[in-house]
Amino acid sequence: MQILPLLAACLLPLASPLQEGAAPAATGEDGVAAYAGAVERILAESALRGRAYEHLSLLCGAAPHRLSGSEGAEKAVRWAEARMRELGLEHVRLEPCSVPHWERGTVAQLLLEGPAAVRGANLSVLALGGSVGTPPEGLTASVLEVKSFEELESRAASVPGKIVLFNRPLNGALLDTFAAYGAAVDQRTEGAERAGRLGAAAVLVRSMTARSDDFPHTGAMRYGDGTARIPAAAVSTRAADTLSALLAAGEDVRVRLRLDCRTLEDVPSWNVVGELVGRELPGEVVLVGGHLDAWDVGQGAHDDGAGCCQALEVPRLLSALELRPRRTIRVVLFMNEENGLRGAKAYAELHAEELERHVLALESDRGGFAPRGFTCDAGPLSLPTLQAIAGLLSPAGAGALVPGGGGADVGPLADHGVVTAGFLPEGARYFDYHHSERDTLDAVHPRELNLGAGVMAALCYVVADLPVRLPANAPAAGK
Amino acid sequence: MQILPLLAACLLPLASPLQEGAAPAATGEDGVAAYAGAVERILAESALRGRAYEHLSLLCGAAPHRLSGSEGAEKAVRWAEARMRELGLEHVRLEPCSVPHWERGTVAQLLLEGPAAVRGANLSVLALGGSVGTPPEGLTASVLEVKSFEELESRAASVPGKIVLFNRPLNGALLDTFAAYGAAVDQRTEGAERAGRLGAAAVLVRSMTARSDDFPHTGAMRYGDGTARIPAAAVSTRAADTLSALLAAGEDVRVRLRLDCRTLEDVPSWNVVGELVGRELPGEVVLVGGHLDAWDVGQGAHDDGAGCCQALEVPRLLSALELRPRRTIRVVLFMNEENGLRGAKAYAELHAEELERHVLALESDRGGFAPRGFTCDAGPLSLPTLQAIAGLLSPAGAGALVPGGGGADVGPLADHGVVTAGFLPEGARYFDYHHSERDTLDAVHPRELNLGAGVMAALCYVVADLPVRLPANAPAAGK
Repeated sequence: MQILPLLAACLLPLASPLQEGAAPAATGEDGVAAYAGAVERILAESALRGRAYEHLSLLCGAAPHRLSGSEGAEKAVRWAEARMRELGLEHVRLEPCSVPHWERGTVAQLLLEGPAAVRGANLSVLALGGSVGTPPEGLTASVLEVKSFEELESRAASVPGKIVLFNRPLNGALLDTFAAYGAAVDQRTEGAERAGRLGAAAVLVRSMTARSDDFPHTGAMRYGDGTARIPAAAVSTRAADTLSALLAAGEDVRVRLRLDCRTLEDVPSWNVVGELVGRELPGEVVLVGGHLDAWDVGQGAHDDGAGCCQALEVPRLLSALELRPRRTIRVVLFMNEENGLRGAKAYAELHAEELERHVLALESDRGGFAPRGFTCDAGPLSLPTLQAIAGLLSPAGAGALVPGGGGADVGPLADHGVVTAGFLPEGARYFDYHHSERDTLDAVHPRELNLGAGVMAALCYVVADLPVRLPANAPAAGK
Repeated sequence: MQILPLLAACLLPLASPLQEGAAPAATGEDGVAAYAGAVERILAESALRGRAYEHLSLLCGAAPHRLSGSEGAEKAVRWAEARMRELGLEHVRLEPCSVPHWERGTVAQLLLEGPAAVRGANLSVLALGGSVGTPPEGLTASVLEVKSFEELESRAASVPGKIVLFNRPLNGALLDTFAAYGAAVDQRTEGAERAGRLGAAAVLVRSMTARSDDFPHTGAMRYGDGTARIPAAAVSTRAADTLSALLAAGEDVRVRLRLDCRTLEDVPSWNVVGELVGRELPGEVVLVGGHLDAWDVGQGAHDDGAGCCQALEVPRLLSALELRPRRTIRVVLFMNEENGLRGAKAYAELHAEELERHVLALESDRGGFAPRGFTCDAGPLSLPTLQAIAGLLSPAGAGALVPGGGGADVGPLADHGVVTAGFLPEGARYFDYHHSERDTLDAVHPRELNLGAGVMAALCYVVADLPVRLPANAPAAGK
C-alpha cells in the first residue's frame, strides 16, 4: 500500500523542462516521465495566468439561462463559437443536433390548503424538466409521503388521487457526494412515472441536496410510455421537511400545485467544436468537453459552464506555452446533456468513422472546484500510462485516478471503445448549487477553476503528444 | 509510481468492523489494516452527524474577536472550558501561560495627501499586530515602493523619512498556497525592522492574499532589538496597486498614516485542555489541538476556530461511537499562536517530563476546508505506519501524507522528539480569508469542516489504539 501522492510526486526524478517543439525521449511508462517539465509549466501557467474564470464570467453574462431549445441556448452557441475564434482555435464549427424544447413557463406555486393552521402558506417549488403543467387553477390533493419505490408500491391502494411526496434525503454518510446523489435521484427521474402508474395526481420530489434551505433544485424527469403524465416538481429540502412534519403530526395535508410548464416541438441546435490541430498526427484526436446547455435557473456556472470554460482553456493554455502536441486536441461543447443527450449522440453518429482514432475523450461535468484528479474508464493497456500521468499531477492535488465513466456526454464514445475520463474536483459543495438558483458565478473560485483547467490541459497534452498512442478499450458488445 | 489513492482504497481488503472495546488483531503495517472498519465508521459518522460546525458557530458567536490578552480571549477560554465539559471530556482544566497584550485601538487611516489629483482619498489599512502607533495627528511622508529586502538595501539612501511600501505579491505560480505565503510573509514580519534600521518613518505591507480586493490582512510583525520602532500596517491589495500605479506614473506619492495601536503589559492567560482517557495506557498521549486565540478582525473562523472545533470534535466523535482507545487523546486549545506562541511554549515546559510519552501531536491550523490528508514530521520508524493509516483515509479524499512540520503550536514538541502532524485541507481559498474581516463563519462549509474532523479523529484513534506504540523521532540536538 503506497498512498503518498504528493510525497511521491516530490520525490519524482524530474525530467529537464521540455523544449518547445522538441519531441521528448520515450522513457518510463510509455514515455510519460519525460513530460514532467511540460506538466509543471502547464500547471504553473494555469495557476498564474489561467483564463477559465474569465471565460466563465463572460458566458454567465452572455447566456445565464441556456436550456436546450431556448433563446438562451442559442446565445450560448453563438458566444462559444465567437469565443473559440477569439482564442485562436482552429476548425471552429457548429455541428447539428435536434433537441427537445421544454419551457418552464412563469407559474410555479405550491400552496398549503390544509390543515387550517398553515392554510395559505407557500412552499418553495420548481417544475422538474419535462413535466407537464397543471390546469390553470392548479391541482389540489392530499399529500402522501414515501421514501422509496418499495414503500410506494406497498401503499399502492392509497396513491390514487394523491400528490405523492418522494422524500428520501441524500445519504450524508456516503463520502462520495455523487454516490449519494446517484442513490437518491431515481425519485426525480422515475417518480412521476411510478406514481402516475398507480393513479397519483402529481408528484413532489425532495431537492437533491444535503443542505437545509429554501432553494428547490430542478432536473430531468421522464414519463414511461403509455403511463399517465402527471405534473412533477422539486420542493426545497425545508419545504419537504415541513410537509413531512405536518404528516408526522397526523394531519391531512392538502396542497394546491400550479405549474404552467410545457413541451413544444423539437428544435435544431448545435454542438460547438474547435481544435488545436496536431503537428504530426492531426487525424488522431484527444477530445475535451463539457455541456453548453444548462438548467434555466441560476447561471449554470458550475453545471456546466465550468466544464465548458475549462475545455476552452485547454488549447488556449497550450497555445500560450507554444505546446502544440503531435495529435489534435478537439474541444466539443455538447448541447442537451441535461434533458436528452442529443448532442452527445449526434457527435458519436457524425464522427462514427473517426472514433477509432479518438485516443481519449475527457469530460468536465462535476463542477469547477479544486482539482482532485480524474475518473477513467480505461482498460489494462491504457491504465498504467494514465496512472503515470496522474503522478505528474499530484503537485496540483490532482493525483487521484479512480475507476468510473467519464461522464454522460462521452458515454456514447465509450461504447465504441474510446478511452474516457472525467475531471474529478472536490465534491463537498457541488450539490449545494446544482440545478438551483444558487449555481452562479460567485460560487466558483477563480484559482480552483483555473487550476482544474490546468490539470485537464496537462492530461490532454501528454496523451496527445505521447510517442505511442494510448491503446483503445475493447468496444462494448454489439457496437 | 503508484498514484491511485482512491482506487487503492477501494481495493483494500476491508477488515470486519471493529467490535466495540475489542482489541483488533495486529496484522499488516503494525496492525493498521485491522482498523479499516473503525475508520470507515468514524468517517461516516463525521459526515452524517459531525458537530464541528456546530461548535464553531457557537465559538464565533461567543468570542468572535479573541486576540491574546483581550477580553475576547478570556471569553473564548471560558467558552472552551464549558464546551469541553458539556461534551463530556475528562480532566478538563486550564493551564497557565503569560501572553502579550497588544491593542489595535480605534484609529486606522491611510490618507492620500498627494499628488493633488487624488488628495483626500482613503486607502484600506489595518495595523500589523505588535506595531506601535503614530502620533495622534498621524505621520505624513512620501512613499517608497520595494519588492524585496535586497531592493530596500540597494535604495538605502532614499529610505530615511519615507514610508516604505513592501509590495511583493504572493507568487501565484506556486501550486502550494502556503509556500507562496511563506515566500512573501517576511515583508510583514521583518519589514518594519529592516526599514526602521535604514531610517524609514513607517512601513506599509501588501496584504498576504492573492485576491484583488479592499480587505487588509493583518498579522504579526516584530521589531529587532535596539532598532527604531516604526509603525507598520497592512494595506489591501487594491490599495497597494493604487499606490504602485501612482508611483509608476512618476508621482511623489505622499500619505498620512494614523494608528493608535499600542502594547500593554503581559497578562495571564490559559491553554484549555481536556481528555478522552485511554483505557489501557492512560499515560501515553495523542495530542490534538488548534489555537484558541485569533486576530481581532473577522471571527477567526478558519484561523483557527476551525482547528479548535475539529480538535474538540475528535473525542466527541469517538465517544459517540463508543470507541475509547488504549491511549489517552488529549485536546489542547493553545493560547497565543498568532503573536508569541506562549501557550505552546508553556505546554512544552509544563509537560516536559511527559513528552517522551507523547506518541503523536496533531495540529489543525490551515483552515476548515475539505480534507486532503496530513503533513508530518515522522522518522523512518513511524512513517510506514502513518502511510498505512493515510491509505485508510483515502475514501474521504484525505490520503495525502506530505513531509513537513505539524504546525507552530506542536513545534516545541517536535524539538523533543514527538512525532508531529498537521491537518492538510484544500488550500486554494485559505488566504482569501486569513487575518481579515472575511474570516467569518459563512466562509466555512459544514460538511468540509465536519469531514476534516472525522479524518483527524480517525488518525488519532488508530495511533492511540495501536497495539504497538508509534516510535518517537530522535530529539533535536541540544534538547
